[in-house]
Amino acid sequence: MGELEDLRLETRAFAEARDWGRFHTPKNLAMAIAGEAGELVAEFRWLTPEESDGDRLTPEHRRAIEFEMADVLIFLLRLGDVLDVDLADVVRAKLAANENRFPPVH
Amino acid sequence: MGELEDLRLETRAFAEARDWGRFHTPKNLAMAIAGEAGELVAEFRWLTPEESDGDRLTPEHRRAIEFEMADVLIFLLRLGDVLDVDLADVVRAKLAANENRFPPVH
Amino acid sequence: MGELEDLRLETRAFAEARDWGRFHTPKNLAMAIAGEAGELVAEFRWLTPEESDGDRLTPEHRRAIEFEMADVLIFLLRLGDVLDVDLADVVRAKLAANENRFPPVH
Amino acid sequence: MGELEDLRLETRAFAEARDWGRFHTPKNLAMAIAGEAGELVAEFRWLTPEESDGDRLTPEHRRAIEFEMADVLIFLLRLGDVLDVDLADVVRAKLAANENRFPPVH
Repeated sequence: MGELEDLRLETRAFAEARDWGRFHTPKNLAMAIAGEAGELVAEFRWLTPEESDGDRLTPEHRRAIEFEMADVLIFLLRLGDVLDVDLADVVRAKLAANENRFPPVH
Repeated sequence: MGELEDLRLETRAFAEARDWGRFHTPKNLAMAIAGEAGELVAEFRWLTPEESDGDRLTPEHRRAIEFEMADVLIFLLRLGDVLDVDLADVVRAKLAANENRFPPVH
Repeated sequence: MGELEDLRLETRAFAEARDWGRFHTPKNLAMAIAGEAGELVAEFRWLTPEESDGDRLTPEHRRAIEFEMADVLIFLLRLGDVLDVDLADVVRAKLAANENRFPPVH
Repeated sequence: MGELEDLRLETRAFAEARDWGRFHTPKNLAMAIAGEAGELVAEFRWLTPEESDGDRLTPEHRRAIEFEMADVLIFLLRLGDVLDVDLADVVRAKLAANENRFPPVH
């Protein structure tokens, strides 16, 4: 079983142990993803692009960023679970579709 | 090698083949994630929670949603790549941290 | 009558003429704001901060940005309308609250 | 002078008194708007559409929502200031453009 499938089942178990199923409609999970993505982008808003480099982030800031990234992925895994979407499949399908839109330069 | 690591290398190769490295600063990738999460939430905005159920979505709508989910994950993989973040690790660290904040009810 | 009140009534009339009232719950309008803010941030994602300066934007890009800004405000006006929130009042209340959190430096 | 112009100058004065001008590039302000919109949508994520009605929100929740709405508008006013965009003008231009896309039903 794949790594994403493992993570999907772990996030599902976490939600089920808390009776969160009734909150986790696709609509609500999409809102949760947008909310967490908003927190993630807020971590970077006052940094220059150079200051956002991994080497220049403080350990505390890096940890905050990592947790926001985790939150986005947790809710994306939950949405994949309730909609029965294989995330690896759709990533590869989207990359394939983008091949034609954006031809490689080398 | 894990599935997320495979996907990380595939999205990296896609970006490198197009010379997108200079655009893919952590700051810019966080913006891309927020942008794609905005498109994802927009897909659901006028639906009731019930209408957002997977069984009730049209095939066209489902496909649009899947592609927005893919876009969020593609940029999250890219951000994990440039910041050297292991997404599976941080998801599990966040779930562990949440165990204490939200005790299971059963 | 104030300018924001005028705009609020204009956006309400626009929605009423299309029978959009049933879609414009506070929850859905918050989603619409997040969706439009995502489109706005996407306009800037690959620009350097310097390239995002008003003088350096192409007329076409400026127009796209202005329309995304308009969309954010239109849905914010709609949310203020359905929740009966005076936007000018809350902006001033928030600025006053921020006075204490962020003391002026000069 | 209009109400939005007043608010624009108040938010500008607030930023200038804190030397925030160098942070307030259009790119960064777009990120701030997306971040605040993410916080706003997060306030509603677990509510049903019915629970999001103004009459059913607790006073504390309503106040939190109002402050997130204020934050979105504050950064939108700042973006309008640095890009020299008249928000009332663009709202009306967008409504006029939408007239053709979405014909009124009555």
